[in-house]
Amino acid sequence: MTTPNIPKGTRDFGPIEMARRNYIFSTIRKVFTQFGFRQIETPAMELMSTLMGKYGEEGDKLLFRIQNSGEKAGLAPEKGLRYDLTVPFARYVVQHRADITFPFRRFQIQPVWRADRPQKGRYREFYQCDVDIIGTNSLVSELELVQIVEAVYQAFGIRVCLHLNNRKVLAGIAEIIGAPDSIIDITTAIDKLDKIGQDKVNDELRERGLSEEAVNKLQPILGLSGTNEEKLVALRALLAESEIGTKGVEELDKLLTLCAQLTTLNIQLDLTLARGLNYYTGAIFEVKALDVQIGSITGGGRYDNLTGIFGLPEVSGVGISFGADRIYDVLTELNLYPTTMPDATQLMFAAFGQDELTYALKWAKQLREKGICVEVYPETAKMKKQLAYANANAIPYVAVVGESEMASNTVMLKQMLSGEQQPVNIDTLCQILTNNSTK
Amino acid sequence: MTTPNIPKGTRDFGPIEMARRNYIFSTIRKVFTQFGFRQIETPAMELMSTLMGKYGEEGDKLLFRIQNSGEKAGLAPEKGLRYDLTVPFARYVVQHRADITFPFRRFQIQPVWRADRPQKGRYREFYQCDVDIIGTNSLVSELELVQIVEAVYQAFGIRVCLHLNNRKVLAGIAEIIGAPDSIIDITTAIDKLDKIGQDKVNDELRERGLSEEAVNKLQPILGLSGTNEEKLVALRALLAESEIGTKGVEELDKLLTLCAQLTTLNIQLDLTLARGLNYYTGAIFEVKALDVQIGSITGGGRYDNLTGIFGLPEVSGVGISFGADRIYDVLTELNLYPTTMPDATQLMFAAFGQDELTYALKWAKQLREKGICVEVYPETAKMKKQLAYANANAIPYVAVVGESEMASNTVMLKQMLSGEQQPVNIDTLCQILTNNSTK
Repeated sequence: MTTPNIPKGTRDFGPIEMARRNYIFSTIRKVFTQFGFRQIETPAMELMSTLMGKYGEEGDKLLFRIQNSGEKAGLAPEKGLRYDLTVPFARYVVQHRADITFPFRRFQIQPVWRADRPQKGRYREFYQCDVDIIGTNSLVSELELVQIVEAVYQAFGIRVCLHLNNRKVLAGIAEIIGAPDSIIDITTAIDKLDKIGQDKVNDELRERGLSEEAVNKLQPILGLSGTNEEKLVALRALLAESEIGTKGVEELDKLLTLCAQLTTLNIQLDLTLARGLNYYTGAIFEVKALDVQIGSITGGGRYDNLTGIFGLPEVSGVGISFGADRIYDVLTELNLYPTTMPDATQLMFAAFGQDELTYALKWAKQLREKGICVEVYPETAKMKKQLAYANANAIPYVAVVGESEMASNTVMLKQMLSGEQQPVNIDTLCQILTNNSTK
Repeated sequence: MTTPNIPKGTRDFGPIEMARRNYIFSTIRKVFTQFGFRQIETPAMELMSTLMGKYGEEGDKLLFRIQNSGEKAGLAPEKGLRYDLTVPFARYVVQHRADITFPFRRFQIQPVWRADRPQKGRYREFYQCDVDIIGTNSLVSELELVQIVEAVYQAFGIRVCLHLNNRKVLAGIAEIIGAPDSIIDITTAIDKLDKIGQDKVNDELRERGLSEEAVNKLQPILGLSGTNEEKLVALRALLAESEIGTKGVEELDKLLTLCAQLTTLNIQLDLTLARGLNYYTGAIFEVKALDVQIGSITGGGRYDNLTGIFGLPEVSGVGISFGADRIYDVLTELNLYPTTMPDATQLMFAAFGQDELTYALKWAKQLREKGICVEVYPETAKMKKQLAYANANAIPYVAVVGESEMASNTVMLKQMLSGEQQPVNIDTLCQILTNNSTK
């Protein structure tokens, strides 16, 4: 019989990976809740009518469809697996609007599925961690998302830079260079500035029908440098004649002023940041790790009409999404995982005989009642085998129980890393383990 | 435009339901980790070759199949959504056996999907919480699962009874009554004793081909009563001539002796407990809530050859599964949820003007740094609207900020339930909220 396998592009997460992933999710989750966000979950399956046409032609092709097994085919509506958390969120808000008191602060941490060609770092099943405030156009919401970015990456110990732009500024630029209808072409092209360079972006702009004059007018804007304040001053002048552009500059100015008062996060005004998603209408964000060569690890922005596709127009919101897989890679590369994971087994009991095993089970019960994670090797196997098990599972302490320990109401506590051992009573053991877990 | 909807048999979980579900999952998770179990996750999709034939003919029909979109149809292997956590776990163990040091203690909390006809309490997407020890036949593992049941329901405050039986005893009974090959027929029929009564079970046994003599011989066994000890004594005599039956009685005896030393859980030896799943070979468990009329809320047992279907024979394991949906219903019916959910927003700031809003944001930052969950109403909306938002979201405290509060470096702290309010400085506020959250 051949070894069983899993579908291409999917993954099993073993105990070590899961401990790390749980650390990532619980850290992010904790920050979200500290800012008053509430968790929701939506089903893995959505109706195809909810999903289709929301991700462009390419996206439609990447949807996983579910066969209508167990139902009269043709009668039941088609279903597909969710492709992101944004469209289900918009669907949720519209469906449950009568029960929601806006502004609605929600977060959602769930897997999504895409029938993409699997490759390094790209999976067909992966988690997204989305946080959104919907139902207010206050820039305080943008500020809070910036503060969340700061708190999350501070907790992880990852140094980051937040790249900030505003879609209204991009629209203003399109207006000023005389190509107001080409905003999507322009943003799609300059989104690639980092990857393909200014010359190739210019080529692409020409291909997309921009006049030579427009391309020329765009160059100083793309090349804008200096501090955020200097860029804002230049931009305000450049966009003075565009109403929407001036509005965008105002928004950036206000947000940066708030940020200066409330965060110390490294924020960079980046006019080349466009982000591919065309539903953004205001601020757009992207976060990059400073010490690792990797793409954006968090991104998002403001949208003014996300729920419009489901019949509820003019609800403004802003949100960001944390990429768990990339954060995992960054933490691994920088070796930033805590040495003691919460919920990791701290101690294993190893017993020489049946009576010792029962003795160990009683001690284990007492330790668990104090909230300590312990396990008991379930057999009276050879001590070497029991210790090998503890080693393989990175359990830091083993309490060996033999006749003499039972007689003296102690265990022989062995620190696996150093090999040191000492007889201890239950109170001392409890104290050692409690100190160890709070380190 | 019509209101969007979700597929039949699936559910959205809003903030209140999610807080409750998180409470359930985190309580169960905490107990699992205190017993040294390690979490794994497997993909939502498995190859159809992994799933097919594992759940009987009926089960095969209830599998959700995924269409091979984005791939050359016919070339890619068929995929389906996981139907339970047991088969993926068996697949995982076989696939990763080289990396596992047995005994392997794993837990898994993930959704499963079944194309069942949706009805009250039966969903097409629901979570399972499975905990298994695989690679040892020590009865200490059964004991630990009993201890886990005790700890979980103690944490929830749900009074339960654990029904215990042993498949070897059932096999022994089949032998003794002269129908050794009818063990599956017998267990399937007596599994229904609770639901349809002894007469109808007898009818079913006859229909399944059992002789009148065998049915008669079965009656005293089905009607066995008294304490667990009394039942064991009777059973030992009844099954004396069956080797496997005697082995089963031995196992029950040893397990009950261990349990008497290490738990105070209400355990009832229940010979009518059979459980439908035919892969069980030793102990079988089912847990029922004492104060609510609802089916089994936890169940499981020992299996000797789960991984055999994937080419790794003779690996013994034992596991149980907690049913999150039924636990949810029991907690709701008995009103046992904690009044303050962890991670719930404790305080909302309500500001009268822009300056007050910035002031509030600064206070919020300080409180969050102390680990307190607070939010700031993001607009300078009418105070009535802001307070209504706090009420709708069950936020217990609101800190109102106006000019005079800013001048005196305080906030007006309003307790929403009582309506009481008092001016407080940041230290007092911090203290009130910290005390409140640890209550």
